[in-house]
Amino acid sequence: MDAMDDPSFKYFKCTDRERAIFEAGIKLGAIFHQYTGIPVNDKNSSEVAKAIESAVKIQPFVESINISINYKKDSSSAFNYLSLSGDMIDARITVNYNGIMVRARMKYIEELKYPLMYLEE
Amino acid sequence: MDAMDDPSFKYFKCTDRERAIFEAGIKLGAIFHQYTGIPVNDKNSSEVAKAIESAVKIQPFVESINISINYKKDSSSAFNYLSLSGDMIDARITVNYNGIMVRARMKYIEELKYPLMYLEE
Amino acid sequence: MDAMDDPSFKYFKCTDRERAIFEAGIKLGAIFHQYTGIPVNDKNSSEVAKAIESAVKIQPFVESINISINYKKDSSSAFNYLSLSGDMIDARITVNYNGIMVRARMKYIEELKYPLMYLEE
Amino acid sequence: MDAMDDPSFKYFKCTDRERAIFEAGIKLGAIFHQYTGIPVNDKNSSEVAKAIESAVKIQPFVESINISINYKKDSSSAFNYLSLSGDMIDARITVNYNGIMVRARMKYIEELKYPLMYLEE
Repeated sequence: MDAMDDPSFKYFKCTDRERAIFEAGIKLGAIFHQYTGIPVNDKNSSEVAKAIESAVKIQPFVESINISINYKKDSSSAFNYLSLSGDMIDARITVNYNGIMVRARMKYIEELKYPLMYLEE
Repeated sequence: MDAMDDPSFKYFKCTDRERAIFEAGIKLGAIFHQYTGIPVNDKNSSEVAKAIESAVKIQPFVESINISINYKKDSSSAFNYLSLSGDMIDARITVNYNGIMVRARMKYIEELKYPLMYLEE
Repeated sequence: MDAMDDPSFKYFKCTDRERAIFEAGIKLGAIFHQYTGIPVNDKNSSEVAKAIESAVKIQPFVESINISINYKKDSSSAFNYLSLSGDMIDARITVNYNGIMVRARMKYIEELKYPLMYLEE
Repeated sequence: MDAMDDPSFKYFKCTDRERAIFEAGIKLGAIFHQYTGIPVNDKNSSEVAKAIESAVKIQPFVESINISINYKKDSSSAFNYLSLSGDMIDARITVNYNGIMVRARMKYIEELKYPLMYLEE
């Protein structure tokens, strides 16, 4: 989306790159807090991943999004599924604001015991 | 799932029908609070509905589930999507506990201004 | 709430006890899927538990609700907090429909590796 | 938090201001998608707002957070409460990364029909 097509343009005082970085943060924070909790197992995890991608894609300034869900069969419950948690999600997003591209990622980092959201490259 | 295959059987003291009703309530409460907030528009609402069905289906004792999302284009934002809200969801679920079937539904009821969850028939 | 004060009364064809059981299921399903994901640690977990109670209490037919959050300091991340998960929540609810009381609970059951929602007594 | 105390420092290649902007985006995206759906009315909306603040405050690099919930009594359901929605939330956050402060806000903007997240000043 071009800045001239951005209906919220006048509310921001920052560079295009800063805007793209802000939007990338919004999307990753949203992914974690919207989708964790969804029941997943081997049968539906790729369908859920695709639906999450479809929902992120229609948000403003998203150039591309890739979600993969690592279902941890071994920690599965007696009912053969798990609630999607942050450590099972790997999300890669590219935001495009006015031609400026920013790539960000959410990934569980073992040494931090934390699903880190960070800016790539 | 038969009662004899239910790993949580011993925790319950109720009839099979009561158990089925309880499970139907759990699933509808879960649907509302897990999925509202997802970005939807004409492009992805049926894909999101299918993914919700796939996630409800793997939960215990679900015989069938049908989700339809009524995207309200007219109330859409400047960014051409809406956050999924309870009034946009129609969910019909059949729970089967030990052969006893219970049908429940979540549907927005205009006169109550409320996404009502109720037992059908 | 008396049945005669229940604006949704006409949508149900079931006994008062079945209605109370259904409503108990709804509330527990809602608790799991609404509140898991909230950042908690030693500082705020009791405040979050109280706020959840306040929100459950205003839902229809809730007689009483008690939430306790077991913050697992040992599994905490490098940032000194955790996202609230189902295994950290113990919820006890009493639903009152037309004078009929039903008590239900959500609690993590070690042998099931599952946050079980069940009817008490 | 100083950069030297940031356990995730090495994963980022950006300026301190860019980092602060990214973190502000994450927090606002999280607020919208974690807390919308919570039952609120006049009785509990300020308690819920305080609990949200307590949860945002323990996330990394948050200097201050102010949440206000505008409960819309007029649109309330037959059950006298509403599910918290984005148009009811006004959130102001200050992120501090290594001494660099960034202020961001989420607020419903009438002309956009959208709960906009933006950078202030």
